[in-house]
Amino acid sequence: VPFVLNAWYVVAWPHEILAEALLARTVCNNAMVVWRGTDGIVHALEDRCPHREMPMSLGILEQGGLRCRYHGLLFAPNGKCTEVPGQDRISAGLEIRRYPTVEKYGWIWVWPGDAAKADASLVPEAYAHNDRADLEMVGRTAHFKANYLMVIDNLLDLTHEPFLHPTSLGNAAVYEAPAETFIDESSVRVERWMLGKLGSPMWVGMLQEFVHYEGPCDRWQKVFFAPPSGIYLHLGAAPAGAGALQGDLSRSAWFINNQFLTPETETSTLDFWSVANADFGRERIAAFMDRARDTILKEDQIALEGCQSVIDRQPGRKNYSIPTDKAGLAARRIVARMLAAEKRAQAHSG
Amino acid sequence: VPFVLNAWYVVAWPHEILAEALLARTVCNNAMVVWRGTDGIVHALEDRCPHREMPMSLGILEQGGLRCRYHGLLFAPNGKCTEVPGQDRISAGLEIRRYPTVEKYGWIWVWPGDAAKADASLVPEAYAHNDRADLEMVGRTAHFKANYLMVIDNLLDLTHEPFLHPTSLGNAAVYEAPAETFIDESSVRVERWMLGKLGSPMWVGMLQEFVHYEGPCDRWQKVFFAPPSGIYLHLGAAPAGAGALQGDLSRSAWFINNQFLTPETETSTLDFWSVANADFGRERIAAFMDRARDTILKEDQIALEGCQSVIDRQPGRKNYSIPTDKAGLAARRIVARMLAAEKRAQAHSG
Amino acid sequence: VPFVLNAWYVVAWPHEILAEALLARTVCNNAMVVWRGTDGIVHALEDRCPHREMPMSLGILEQGGLRCRYHGLLFAPNGKCTEVPGQDRISAGLEIRRYPTVEKYGWIWVWPGDAAKADASLVPEAYAHNDRADLEMVGRTAHFKANYLMVIDNLLDLTHEPFLHPTSLGNAAVYEAPAETFIDESSVRVERWMLGKLGSPMWVGMLQEFVHYEGPCDRWQKVFFAPPSGIYLHLGAAPAGAGALQGDLSRSAWFINNQFLTPETETSTLDFWSVANADFGRERIAAFMDRARDTILKEDQIALEGCQSVIDRQPGRKNYSIPTDKAGLAARRIVARMLAAEKRAQAHSG
Repeated sequence: VPFVLNAWYVVAWPHEILAEALLARTVCNNAMVVWRGTDGIVHALEDRCPHREMPMSLGILEQGGLRCRYHGLLFAPNGKCTEVPGQDRISAGLEIRRYPTVEKYGWIWVWPGDAAKADASLVPEAYAHNDRADLEMVGRTAHFKANYLMVIDNLLDLTHEPFLHPTSLGNAAVYEAPAETFIDESSVRVERWMLGKLGSPMWVGMLQEFVHYEGPCDRWQKVFFAPPSGIYLHLGAAPAGAGALQGDLSRSAWFINNQFLTPETETSTLDFWSVANADFGRERIAAFMDRARDTILKEDQIALEGCQSVIDRQPGRKNYSIPTDKAGLAARRIVARMLAAEKRAQAHSG
Repeated sequence: VPFVLNAWYVVAWPHEILAEALLARTVCNNAMVVWRGTDGIVHALEDRCPHREMPMSLGILEQGGLRCRYHGLLFAPNGKCTEVPGQDRISAGLEIRRYPTVEKYGWIWVWPGDAAKADASLVPEAYAHNDRADLEMVGRTAHFKANYLMVIDNLLDLTHEPFLHPTSLGNAAVYEAPAETFIDESSVRVERWMLGKLGSPMWVGMLQEFVHYEGPCDRWQKVFFAPPSGIYLHLGAAPAGAGALQGDLSRSAWFINNQFLTPETETSTLDFWSVANADFGRERIAAFMDRARDTILKEDQIALEGCQSVIDRQPGRKNYSIPTDKAGLAARRIVARMLAAEKRAQAHSG
Repeated sequence: VPFVLNAWYVVAWPHEILAEALLARTVCNNAMVVWRGTDGIVHALEDRCPHREMPMSLGILEQGGLRCRYHGLLFAPNGKCTEVPGQDRISAGLEIRRYPTVEKYGWIWVWPGDAAKADASLVPEAYAHNDRADLEMVGRTAHFKANYLMVIDNLLDLTHEPFLHPTSLGNAAVYEAPAETFIDESSVRVERWMLGKLGSPMWVGMLQEFVHYEGPCDRWQKVFFAPPSGIYLHLGAAPAGAGALQGDLSRSAWFINNQFLTPETETSTLDFWSVANADFGRERIAAFMDRARDTILKEDQIALEGCQSVIDRQPGRKNYSIPTDKAGLAARRIVARMLAAEKRAQAHSG
């Protein structure tokens, strides 16, 4: 099993679950159909009718649940078959696997593992920042044809910015300023301060636009990893010496970038990313994200999908780590420990 | 071996074998080239030159047979090499596998198994209805990216019509009226009468057009399976109580729909389907088939190809049968018995 | 190992290595990035950063070598990492596999095997004819989705011309005139003279254009194979009895066609082909090659890719050889001996 299954994963943004519509998504190799019931609750069932294996995502939404579009079997949101057209008896085994769901912190979550273990309180509070009332937030979904841990590596080591994103996020200041990495049992945090340095093209523009400032700046990157696959970034810049390092953000430009990296398959990832900010306003954030999607995200896709294709040529080949991989390696160790614990628990119960 | 090989399968409609043209088709994983000789006889050879494995379907048709377009080896319709350009001697082993063919009941048949066992009389008489002189018939070829037994399941259980074809073939009357299923050693027959019921959209239209009638109707579905993979459907409707149940079709609309489901590979099927009728006239049948292709057939393709893709995700997984699967399961048992018999015969002879 | 690796293979024409540009090519399953340094020397490294497996062909060319576009690691042309941004120490193991290269006889060569064994003097002199000062030569690169030995078979048995290229190269004269085949330890040569015969369409045109002659001609095909995968063809025609057979080419039309068939993968091949001639002039050769690409090469691609797809259906199946395969079989034996010798040498050293 390549994934931690007893965990909550983001399956969709609330705005992706349209009224009276079915969404087909794959989470940790589990193909599922997701919809919002008339009661407002989001449901997820395996995307397969147990009768003749028809995709349920081609089905018909009804008051009583989801009807298969092939022979019309109706399934309640809990997965139990409640109607077989033309028949009185319904075999007890006619049932679709249900995936627990919860709507929390501005995301729809799904639990691909043992449903009995699912508990809404297990959505880590680390993700609460995705839904801060004091910020304007826009959320979107991107897709990488690369393993999710490679996307996490990417976000935990921003020294790639000057090379992969030189026209926006990056300049030499990033790798010139060493980052501090804080690792504990279940989280990783990276903090980098670039003090009195030239900003990168994007930050130069941000400071001009929001602080009306040109010149050397104090710039920061705070990156937080919460397992199994959430990344929270706090990124900003302020005029050099204006107090940002001491916590005064009054003269600064900054934003929060959440990215939940849901494994779709072993070589593809759904990236539920958002940008949140107090000042930009919704339209400006959306326009900024449009540009980021066509530049920064595209660059990351080219790189990560390129890496994945090289890996696919000779899977399992060793690569070399360097000091800046510290945080990414720590995140991978946390996930490996969770996988091992899950395996042990299964061996005990089996 | 996933297919019964010692059997006749439809490889083409006669009108698909164009003069002086080669047709490449795959039957039960056997790639072959099919053409009509100047003597009017249809021939089939393996689509591979034994010399350097050139597809023979790229070849050149000549009086003496089929010439490979690579080095010009000429093969007689029986598969024997009769000429190697620039050489006098021809090695006895230079031979292409010939597939027996026969033209019967309006179809071209091919025998993918042991040629010594092929006998034109083994084309089941059950298929004679494909070539009735008293009817006008139009034949076409469709393709499903799904196993042929799944297409047979589909046709033997028409309770799917109200859900998959609600704007044409189906309404609730179908599953409200139980079907009778007749099973013997080598055939399956399903008969359903929907008496005094509202017609489905297509049948409402047919009765208006051909009987000038609006109102409750007596409607029937007679489906016959003949192994390995032929389906014959007699479908019709008449004003309620007009005598159709007793055999009087004088005030009724009906047509015959033959479908021979030739396995192409384990996950793809050629569907040689026809519509035959006494009254419609050729152009009206063709126009009806155009509409059916763009609606009913398309709907079946979406469903069956969706099911196949779900099966491909986890091959061999159990599904649940319900009472209306009775006929389809019986057809699968007949095919399984034929496969087992063929395996036993091979073990004896080997 | 399906390829002789300790050998020089053509990786590019010099004009394909553009200034300040990277070329990604695969040679014998080795993906590599090729570029010309500011010193004019062509370098080749494995197309994979050892750090996080980024394709180096997406990298940034600099004075000091090639920089990875992901985290900015700089690699010298010898493959050693010389800079890790933001770090002082560089791990000794941070190194990319270097492929020896040499520019010789008008081609860029690469050595996919043991670099210690690479020696520019091992480029066979047989290829010197690719760079004759007395001829005008145009070189191009074609691609076949077929194994390289199948392309070599094709060129060593031109009896396929009348069937595959009937509107240009071929007519019955080819297979009517037996070829002489000369085989030694490490080369194969085929020579065919078609004396006093009708020319094929292309040669009829050539004789009209360059010799102002219409009528029977003496035509020749000299094909030379030099391992691992080079083919040199001298093709021409002269008025019958005008002395060409005796070596007088003064009244003749002829050209040289070199083809180096570099294995890309086991089922794909790069074909570095050229046409050289003393009289045509550069533009006429280029126009001739445009036509050849759209006719002769296209026909060969259809045939060879067709054969490969038939082989892929049932790999390892025996085919039948005929006398005209003599040269191709001899070439395959030479390559097999080289492969066996390479395997023995590895077993000894291992």
